[in-house]
Amino acid sequence: MSKIIVGHDGGVATVTLSNPGKLNAIDVSMWNGLTEAFSGLSRDESLRCIIVRGADGNFAAGADIEEFASVRSTLEQGMHYHTRTIADALEAIANCLHPVVAAIEGVCVGGGLEIACACDLRIAAPSARFGIPVTRLGFPLAPGEYIGLLQLVGRATALEILLEGRVFDAAEAREKGLLHRIVADVPAEARNTAARIAQGAPLAARMNKKLARRLSPVPEPLDEQELRDAFSFLTSHDYREGVQTFLAKTKPVFTGK
Amino acid sequence: MSKIIVGHDGGVATVTLSNPGKLNAIDVSMWNGLTEAFSGLSRDESLRCIIVRGADGNFAAGADIEEFASVRSTLEQGMHYHTRTIADALEAIANCLHPVVAAIEGVCVGGGLEIACACDLRIAAPSARFGIPVTRLGFPLAPGEYIGLLQLVGRATALEILLEGRVFDAAEAREKGLLHRIVADVPAEARNTAARIAQGAPLAARMNKKLARRLSPVPEPLDEQELRDAFSFLTSHDYREGVQTFLAKTKPVFTGK
Amino acid sequence: MSKIIVGHDGGVATVTLSNPGKLNAIDVSMWNGLTEAFSGLSRDESLRCIIVRGADGNFAAGADIEEFASVRSTLEQGMHYHTRTIADALEAIANCLHPVVAAIEGVCVGGGLEIACACDLRIAAPSARFGIPVTRLGFPLAPGEYIGLLQLVGRATALEILLEGRVFDAAEAREKGLLHRIVADVPAEARNTAARIAQGAPLAARMNKKLARRLSPVPEPLDEQELRDAFSFLTSHDYREGVQTFLAKTKPVFTGK
Repeated sequence: MSKIIVGHDGGVATVTLSNPGKLNAIDVSMWNGLTEAFSGLSRDESLRCIIVRGADGNFAAGADIEEFASVRSTLEQGMHYHTRTIADALEAIANCLHPVVAAIEGVCVGGGLEIACACDLRIAAPSARFGIPVTRLGFPLAPGEYIGLLQLVGRATALEILLEGRVFDAAEAREKGLLHRIVADVPAEARNTAARIAQGAPLAARMNKKLARRLSPVPEPLDEQELRDAFSFLTSHDYREGVQTFLAKTKPVFTGK
Repeated sequence: MSKIIVGHDGGVATVTLSNPGKLNAIDVSMWNGLTEAFSGLSRDESLRCIIVRGADGNFAAGADIEEFASVRSTLEQGMHYHTRTIADALEAIANCLHPVVAAIEGVCVGGGLEIACACDLRIAAPSARFGIPVTRLGFPLAPGEYIGLLQLVGRATALEILLEGRVFDAAEAREKGLLHRIVADVPAEARNTAARIAQGAPLAARMNKKLARRLSPVPEPLDEQELRDAFSFLTSHDYREGVQTFLAKTKPVFTGK
Repeated sequence: MSKIIVGHDGGVATVTLSNPGKLNAIDVSMWNGLTEAFSGLSRDESLRCIIVRGADGNFAAGADIEEFASVRSTLEQGMHYHTRTIADALEAIANCLHPVVAAIEGVCVGGGLEIACACDLRIAAPSARFGIPVTRLGFPLAPGEYIGLLQLVGRATALEILLEGRVFDAAEAREKGLLHRIVADVPAEARNTAARIAQGAPLAARMNKKLARRLSPVPEPLDEQELRDAFSFLTSHDYREGVQTFLAKTKPVFTGK
């Protein structure tokens, strides 16, 4: 049965996409499960990082197309499917309080790649495969999902991916700006990356994630309250800890306070 | 005599820049010819893709500078030349209904590079040469044309190109984000790319092209009508064809309906 | 003693960051010195280019953290420090009339990298080191400085730099879009780049610099006066000189008139 599995290991949570026998194709229950999982994790202030992965050697093959006849057949269904079901899941990842790392092995196509694009960092195996071949399926990319792709790779590369509809390897994905790095042992590098993130101050990481989306692609000026929030670290324990230990050349212990 | 030549081969049209003895330098009649050619092709719904190339082994050397004394000498002339003559041609390419592939051999400089930037995909030969050396000619890039460059390569690279005024090779152009790929046989790869695009659903390709420009660089929300248009594929023949043939593992036949 | 040193060589000025024994860490007096230096240089119309470098083999190690207890301890102090002291310095560089080239050797971290990002071109030695490890110091990047980073490398790379807090080498910095080029002899390449820029028309270079920031990341349409300014070159000496010498195949002499 398809499912979203959430695990914990210290301050790092792992979210696993699982749809056995279907390369983890994402059905409506999994999109809803992602929304729920990330909403819950976002409220857990003890966390420092979240890793997203797929079960059994693949990230995700895309949306579950067998479902389309029942969940995405009319205009109303299709708009609900994309502007609510999928959009809610992708926003729950993108706006999650904590940094999110995608650990990508095997197939990472269509909706799977959209999930990866909503994460903050993307690490992949050399043999992973990427693409959004929707034009071969007779439809264009939905606008909300398109924005995520455009903000990551820009217009020229987004159009190449969509117009040609090719599936391509990790080296090409990295050249296109889809990946931060390619490594042989993806689970190990994902853990190490999460550990590096967890070594920093949690409030700083959360503000860095939030401001990245607030200030790009359009750098709208912050209002007075947002500005004070951005500088609220000045009254935090972790700021004093960070500066003191830096000057004393000792190791900081950050508490998220 | 300078001219814009339009040819057809099945669903693929080819637009050729030709100004013999001048490396296809683009004069006013050619800018106007481009506007006319692309406006006409944009209305032809039987098309699936357009290739832009230059005659005789060069793409285009830039604007025809010999003409400047008569067409771009006063402030009024210059503003008309850039904000109407050139802008209309570049917009006709960028807003053309169909995907446009630039097939670049030889010199692709100044106005020639601006034409390439207005296309959706850019394929070049290793020996092709690129640059916008207008600072050596005593003038800055016109704002409308500057926007096209900035959206493709970003501010840092655009400034490098303009401030130094160097002419550089295809490898550097690709590193700078100007090119999608470098191949030895440009005409063959342009045909193959057009064929890959033509294998997809035409309505999907057109919407993908349109939304790329609508949603970047600024992702302004779509209004209700735009949103319904973006999802209008749900009532199309090609959407049903695409999903059915995918599930049946057969080859789709897309009709653009 | 810490200082900002300004030198001149023909039409090229050099601004040197100097804080001996502290890897040129930038204290408040140096931030203010940068604002003053660039404001002055911006008014000198005889200049063609400015080079920014660090003394004694390092660019700059970041802000002077020993100072934080006295200048960046309360919310009010911190907001003033970032939104005035640092912001004024970075804006003085970014909005300076002349093109600015960063010549980077050794450490280029935190505030040092922010200064480099505010320049127009960035040239570095293979052994130079880059990063913004503020999360290890317990605080997030300030919003004004974040905008500079986001506009240069995009959201995905900015988040990688900030969330992991790694210090990385020039090759990785170039892949990330932080650098235009890596060369063994940075001072020589900076001089050659300044010379290439100085060979072009000064008014063209200044307008190219100004329009790059005016038209990206958001291409807001120019108003009537801005449009006329952008085309004011048509009445300049240097435009006539550039076109005439191009057609005559002789070398232009640009005067900035």
